[in-house]
Amino acid sequence: MKEPIGVIDSGVGGLTVASELIRQLPKESLIYLGDTLRCPYGPRTKEEVITYTWEMVRFLMKKNIKMLVIACNTATAFTLDILRKELPIPVIGVILPGARAAISVSQTAEIGVIGTQGTINSKAYPQALLSINDGITVQDLACPAFVPLVESGAFSGEKAYQVVRDSLQPLMHHPKMDTLILGCTHYPMIKDVIQEVIGHQVTIISSGEETAREVSAILGYQRKLYQGEQEPTYQFYTTGEREVFAQIASNWIGEKLDDVETIIL
Amino acid sequence: MKEPIGVIDSGVGGLTVASELIRQLPKESLIYLGDTLRCPYGPRTKEEVITYTWEMVRFLMKKNIKMLVIACNTATAFTLDILRKELPIPVIGVILPGARAAISVSQTAEIGVIGTQGTINSKAYPQALLSINDGITVQDLACPAFVPLVESGAFSGEKAYQVVRDSLQPLMHHPKMDTLILGCTHYPMIKDVIQEVIGHQVTIISSGEETAREVSAILGYQRKLYQGEQEPTYQFYTTGEREVFAQIASNWIGEKLDDVETIIL
Repeated sequence: MKEPIGVIDSGVGGLTVASELIRQLPKESLIYLGDTLRCPYGPRTKEEVITYTWEMVRFLMKKNIKMLVIACNTATAFTLDILRKELPIPVIGVILPGARAAISVSQTAEIGVIGTQGTINSKAYPQALLSINDGITVQDLACPAFVPLVESGAFSGEKAYQVVRDSLQPLMHHPKMDTLILGCTHYPMIKDVIQEVIGHQVTIISSGEETAREVSAILGYQRKLYQGEQEPTYQFYTTGEREVFAQIASNWIGEKLDDVETIIL
Repeated sequence: MKEPIGVIDSGVGGLTVASELIRQLPKESLIYLGDTLRCPYGPRTKEEVITYTWEMVRFLMKKNIKMLVIACNTATAFTLDILRKELPIPVIGVILPGARAAISVSQTAEIGVIGTQGTINSKAYPQALLSINDGITVQDLACPAFVPLVESGAFSGEKAYQVVRDSLQPLMHHPKMDTLILGCTHYPMIKDVIQEVIGHQVTIISSGEETAREVSAILGYQRKLYQGEQEPTYQFYTTGEREVFAQIASNWIGEKLDDVETIIL
């Protein structure tokens, strides 16, 4: 019996984590659930986010997942501790892997974080960074224009550059900042533009890649990586429109899409 | 009570792991034991390596360590599985973190590994890489001239370039290889020369950095990172000459050296 890794997100942003998991752990099966119907979680209350996340978790637990990845920054900030305590399987969020990677890379100990208003307000990244190293200086900045930009499909071009340039302006006066965390799973889509604007002296950390690596480390440490010969399967569920989700998911994941279904939570 | 992280190595090579641990986890205390007297482990029999490693482990377990890092590739290859089974604390070796990081970075899925004759003969890296992703092509190469070069202190200069150029020659005909694992904890000392020779299109993975990050991930996941206000301490033990070891260690670790002692195992 091949137990899949479960991935939950408020919508499609977590597909960056899923595609990295497929790339880094090609023997593992995956079940992804995006709560597209109620996306975005950013402006919602803590209670709403907790309720919605539990609904997703209960759905995936019935599918016999061996590990849960919370691929949404807001959901991680509000539910990681509770889920870790309550679930009998390992639970990993996107915030600590990003923080750890940034600390590992930074030479100046001055680290930037960009994310949605909700994530930046929660102070989850500064807390995570300082809990590991209290000598870190954090420059955090909400970029509310980035998710709409990504969802409009404008990943490059003059408009993208203009939005990114305007948004990142407050970060341009920190010459010691040598590392920037993309604290939102939508942002890797415009990573090239962000890199161009912020400059090549800054290393950009994408939480998706880092989370996939930490999944590999924890599963490997717990001897739970799949070692059989069975081909992996990739199942996708959404609470929203099947066709819209399938279109976006197949763009990000490629041909490896086995199944997309709409469900009611 | 602040429990330290224990680090063992056949000699001084593991100091690259220790210095990364200090940099990435500045709140954690550390105890390092280098078996300088019986170094190198590379040409020794499996039974000898297992016996010596257990002697080091028993010494550190009496010091109440909360995690054990095997900062030696040969010792990792021969003892990781046994120690994980026998010890009540988490045990981390240097091979899997390097393998995981390389898989995360490589876009071409062709990965090079260099190490001592012992490590390359053990096939531990190819096994680790293929256990995660069996689509990886591995080019491995023993570089027996590198450890003597590093121990002679020739980290750069014409001689270093010549040795590295000659040694890496067999890897120069693999244009698809985009990632190179330094599978020996001595090699980060000549990383710049290796990078220059192999070319900047190849990403070099240093097992020390990666192992430190995985220690952070596992301790973080197990909620065992130190969260108090006590200053960290760094204690160093060697089975060889105190003065020689103290000199090398203070070069690598900087002023943070609290104590160096010679012990008999």
